[in-house]
Amino acid sequence: MGNADYVYPSSAPTAGEGGDCLHRAAIPPPQPFLKSLKNAMKETFFPDDPLRQFKNKPPAKKMILGFQYFFPVVEWGPRYNLGLFKSDLISGFTIASLAIPQGISYAKLANLPPILGLYSSFIPPLIYAMMGSSRDLAVGTVAVASLLISSMLGAEVNPAQNPTLYLHLAFTATFFAGVFQASLGLLRLGFIVDFLSHATIVGFMAGAATVVCLQQLKGILGLTHFTHSTDLVSVLRSVFSQVHEWRWESGVLGCCFLFFLLITRYFSKKKPKFFWISAMAPLTSVILGSLLVFLTHAEKHGVEVIGELKKGVNPVSITKMVFVSPYLSTAIKTGIITGVIALAEGIAVGRSFAMFKHYNIDGNKEMVAIGTMNIVGSCFSCYLTTGPFSRSAVNYNAGCKTAVSNVVMAIAVMLTLLFLTPLFHYTPLVVLSSIIISAMLGLIDYEAAIHLWKVDKFDFLVCIGAYAGVVFASVEIGLVIAVVISLLRLLLFVARPRTLVLGNLPNSTLYRNIEQYPNAGNVPGILILEIDAPIYFANSSYLRERIMRWVDEEEDRIKASSESTLQYVVLDMSAVGNIDTSGISMFEELKKILERRGLKIVLANPGAEVMKKLDKGKFIETLGHEWIYLTVAEAVAACNYMLHSCKPNLVTDEKAEPWNNV
Amino acid sequence: MGNADYVYPSSAPTAGEGGDCLHRAAIPPPQPFLKSLKNAMKETFFPDDPLRQFKNKPPAKKMILGFQYFFPVVEWGPRYNLGLFKSDLISGFTIASLAIPQGISYAKLANLPPILGLYSSFIPPLIYAMMGSSRDLAVGTVAVASLLISSMLGAEVNPAQNPTLYLHLAFTATFFAGVFQASLGLLRLGFIVDFLSHATIVGFMAGAATVVCLQQLKGILGLTHFTHSTDLVSVLRSVFSQVHEWRWESGVLGCCFLFFLLITRYFSKKKPKFFWISAMAPLTSVILGSLLVFLTHAEKHGVEVIGELKKGVNPVSITKMVFVSPYLSTAIKTGIITGVIALAEGIAVGRSFAMFKHYNIDGNKEMVAIGTMNIVGSCFSCYLTTGPFSRSAVNYNAGCKTAVSNVVMAIAVMLTLLFLTPLFHYTPLVVLSSIIISAMLGLIDYEAAIHLWKVDKFDFLVCIGAYAGVVFASVEIGLVIAVVISLLRLLLFVARPRTLVLGNLPNSTLYRNIEQYPNAGNVPGILILEIDAPIYFANSSYLRERIMRWVDEEEDRIKASSESTLQYVVLDMSAVGNIDTSGISMFEELKKILERRGLKIVLANPGAEVMKKLDKGKFIETLGHEWIYLTVAEAVAACNYMLHSCKPNLVTDEKAEPWNNV
Repeated sequence: MGNADYVYPSSAPTAGEGGDCLHRAAIPPPQPFLKSLKNAMKETFFPDDPLRQFKNKPPAKKMILGFQYFFPVVEWGPRYNLGLFKSDLISGFTIASLAIPQGISYAKLANLPPILGLYSSFIPPLIYAMMGSSRDLAVGTVAVASLLISSMLGAEVNPAQNPTLYLHLAFTATFFAGVFQASLGLLRLGFIVDFLSHATIVGFMAGAATVVCLQQLKGILGLTHFTHSTDLVSVLRSVFSQVHEWRWESGVLGCCFLFFLLITRYFSKKKPKFFWISAMAPLTSVILGSLLVFLTHAEKHGVEVIGELKKGVNPVSITKMVFVSPYLSTAIKTGIITGVIALAEGIAVGRSFAMFKHYNIDGNKEMVAIGTMNIVGSCFSCYLTTGPFSRSAVNYNAGCKTAVSNVVMAIAVMLTLLFLTPLFHYTPLVVLSSIIISAMLGLIDYEAAIHLWKVDKFDFLVCIGAYAGVVFASVEIGLVIAVVISLLRLLLFVARPRTLVLGNLPNSTLYRNIEQYPNAGNVPGILILEIDAPIYFANSSYLRERIMRWVDEEEDRIKASSESTLQYVVLDMSAVGNIDTSGISMFEELKKILERRGLKIVLANPGAEVMKKLDKGKFIETLGHEWIYLTVAEAVAACNYMLHSCKPNLVTDEKAEPWNNV
Repeated sequence: MGNADYVYPSSAPTAGEGGDCLHRAAIPPPQPFLKSLKNAMKETFFPDDPLRQFKNKPPAKKMILGFQYFFPVVEWGPRYNLGLFKSDLISGFTIASLAIPQGISYAKLANLPPILGLYSSFIPPLIYAMMGSSRDLAVGTVAVASLLISSMLGAEVNPAQNPTLYLHLAFTATFFAGVFQASLGLLRLGFIVDFLSHATIVGFMAGAATVVCLQQLKGILGLTHFTHSTDLVSVLRSVFSQVHEWRWESGVLGCCFLFFLLITRYFSKKKPKFFWISAMAPLTSVILGSLLVFLTHAEKHGVEVIGELKKGVNPVSITKMVFVSPYLSTAIKTGIITGVIALAEGIAVGRSFAMFKHYNIDGNKEMVAIGTMNIVGSCFSCYLTTGPFSRSAVNYNAGCKTAVSNVVMAIAVMLTLLFLTPLFHYTPLVVLSSIIISAMLGLIDYEAAIHLWKVDKFDFLVCIGAYAGVVFASVEIGLVIAVVISLLRLLLFVARPRTLVLGNLPNSTLYRNIEQYPNAGNVPGILILEIDAPIYFANSSYLRERIMRWVDEEEDRIKASSESTLQYVVLDMSAVGNIDTSGISMFEELKKILERRGLKIVLANPGAEVMKKLDKGKFIETLGHEWIYLTVAEAVAACNYMLHSCKPNLVTDEKAEPWNNV
């Protein structure tokens, strides 16, 4: 049947234009370009409509609201009372007892002076308490960012040979991390963090934890030489090449403390009421370890100790940043990568606890807060901080009510800095290693990985890719692998959209995927296909070929079963969100190819955007508006009407005329 | 209304499980992992099912079919006859007359010896005639690839100072381009070429044409010094800084020939029958120009000529390739980039003419053919060739029937190489420049750009980005800009999916976007939202916020209009093609948030993949399978039933009970 033989179906009972029970696929009213651009911009950058609360308010009120937006403390501060303070005091001291040993440990991990870990738990929490909107986030340094700083900066500057330059670069990197974080928030680009999917983070964190644990073998075994690489192979080779240098004193001490820490953690996990046991365990270990060394003089028998820590609060470091240096680009790169990782952790932690306690967090606002705290921190001898999960969980369990717990922690750390630093002189490094390992083991979330495998194989691949990349290559490579696989998935979704054959569900006018609904029956002479993705340049060639293959297969099937020949291809466009010029060309080609084979193309339910583009691209004109229907049922009814009126005796099955049911 | 108050709607008349007129949203039967992996792989890499014709054939037949697959000549060769040959002979000579001057010009453009242009029109067409499946493609060198070779290789090796190394690198780059092209085809990765969208190619080609024309100012103005950069600013600065060195003889000659070429092209465009006038014009110009110079001895008055060309066919160059060299990476990079560009042009040209003449082209097979012809070519002193649009169009207009026209052209070029090269001694370079400019002006397709602006602003942006990048920065940067913008668009589609409010079309059970169908009415107490993209990590945060904003706005609207309060949020999942673990977590969060506000979430028509994932992720269990409906109408009916039975006197509108119409 050639094209010229078609009688336009406007005479069909189902496609009447003036009918009051049927509707035509509408082309949305045209919008001025600037207006639609403005709308698109708003949806992209202001999806949460942050200016909504400012609407219809006098200018003075707007000022106050704006100030409250950036400093939430102004809002909740006046409502603060003694009852809240009691809870915050307890949780503040609890997290301080965790912050002090962890801070020292992580600073060692970053190859920075241990005192920096304490400095970083003093200034940034104060800033966050003013600007942050989470009530549960406990601010502090994190192991992964510390490791990244040591591996990225360490690749350029040797921290042992040039400690001053290394330290200054760390401040500079922190400064850039803060600037980058704050800019993401201010420019409403927070969604970049969303591109680190949950699967990426699970794999990445587990990989980083593995790498950090491996690094601790140096401390546990009391080795003096150690590789600068972080990958599994280099570390194991380095460890086993110097078996004769392993120190048993150090090893035994380390294992004992690790055992103690793990036991307390296990106990607290079983009985959440005794959370403080595991929270206090690190500080207890430090005190016990220091006492032990002090009493036995073990520092003379191969057990390394921290040594002298300077008394006094944070010195100013703003003048020490290096902006003109051959290493500036390294500092910026380190800042951006560690900044994004730290931000992802901070935002995720803030969001989860907000979820538990039923309040809302604005991601972009949090980014500004975290960024500002790092910018200010970098001016006062702090390195990169964020909201670590473990410490925030302790804070939450200890019953914190507001960000005041961070202030309490900061004051406790300040007092330690002013008066208690000499006490850490005899703290053995091996205890710090145990503390790090015990914290890291909690980050290896193998249950989440098993869940990913069960639910979504692709997510599991992303997760394993990130893990393997971090463990066998480097932290950055692991991250790049995970992000690339994730993006590849998105691109693959668009490049290889699913096309589904639809069939009629018995006794209904519904048309559904015959694989999902095996009882859906095909309609003689009509092939109904659903396209499951936007039609873009990346998939238009594929779709043309795939649709042709469906037609070929359907014709083969019909030949084998001697049904009536195929005459119509109905494309269900419900799931096609958008189309570009390549897609429109594809439709034009498809129409030509199909017409050459005596087949007519019919569209069902194209969305607003698609109708607009098809109209502008003149495809509606080429196809004829009467061949575009609002539902698959109407399209099938019209096709059936045509089939019947042209070949009245071919199909007699009443069921195949769904307009009876409409 | 809290969660505990809900009566499950299984008692509602519309949701009966055993009802024979209603269906439940089905979870597709589980598939073994390996089977679904195999299916996914097949859809990704073999969408056109190339092995289909081999099915159920004896091994000997399979061998023959396989041979025919790679050498289509075996298939059509036996059917070749004298009638076809007559047509091919005419078109072959026509394209040869174009190939000779163009070949010499483009080789000059690539800073290669002019004779290479002739060599490249001899061997590759012969290979293509055996392996290619297009009947209209005329093989030859192209201006854009020539320019890319000169700019990319020229950045590393100065062709004037080290011509031998430069030449050998060009062969090596061609070899790698061929290997890359053939591998893409063999590995079924042809879809990578699809990522160069039509808009990218329009902008890129126009930019490259502009750049190539600017480069010709050197020849037209007879300049001896010229910048090595290709960007507009550098070239214009270079031209205008040496105004005193412009040669008027050269300029006048160039303008005359350009005028002649443009006039003939304009004439042939108006009267397609006289296509041969513009096809012959370049050769005529070359002959006229050479005669003029020979008679007036203009070569002694500032008009540069080609000089001596070696007689004889292609020397072997396989031993001249450089695989161990500091420049190897440059050669590989040049090969890959020029290879992809050349491939995109060749495939697009082949496909368009196949479209006109109603035959099919297999993209992956074409890639193998084009790749092989470049690999073999690089062993015989040819540089990169493909199927240029202009030459193929002439071939088509001249009435070619099969790839034999390429063979005729190759023989004509061979005869030229053997006997006629001395005749080109006096050909002035300025004529070659005119030929290039006249060909390039045809590549600036401003009408296509206007069409893009009208139909799709984003495609226009891509096009302009590519153009500006090529003209103001460099060819590679233009390409990168265009590809990045295109990918960004795909990512943005996924990252910022549209959510649409649906309303009930009057007198029907259809629910459609209220912006597209302004007469669609909202249903009291129920908010119906359609999500228009797969739910992935990249958009799950956004969707959560956006859906909450819709709920907020709806509640504000209801408050203002004192309608009945919002109690149900129906999510139409028809257009959600897939979901990942982040998406499932988002649904869990959304459910919690909405329940806290006394709202119930209801899903309508999730697809097979989504149902499978939701089931594995236990969300169906959490939500209750009875809250998932096959259509929006059923979901609304069930919600309405609940609204009525809980608050019987609140809504009395009969129309709002669509199950009456189902």
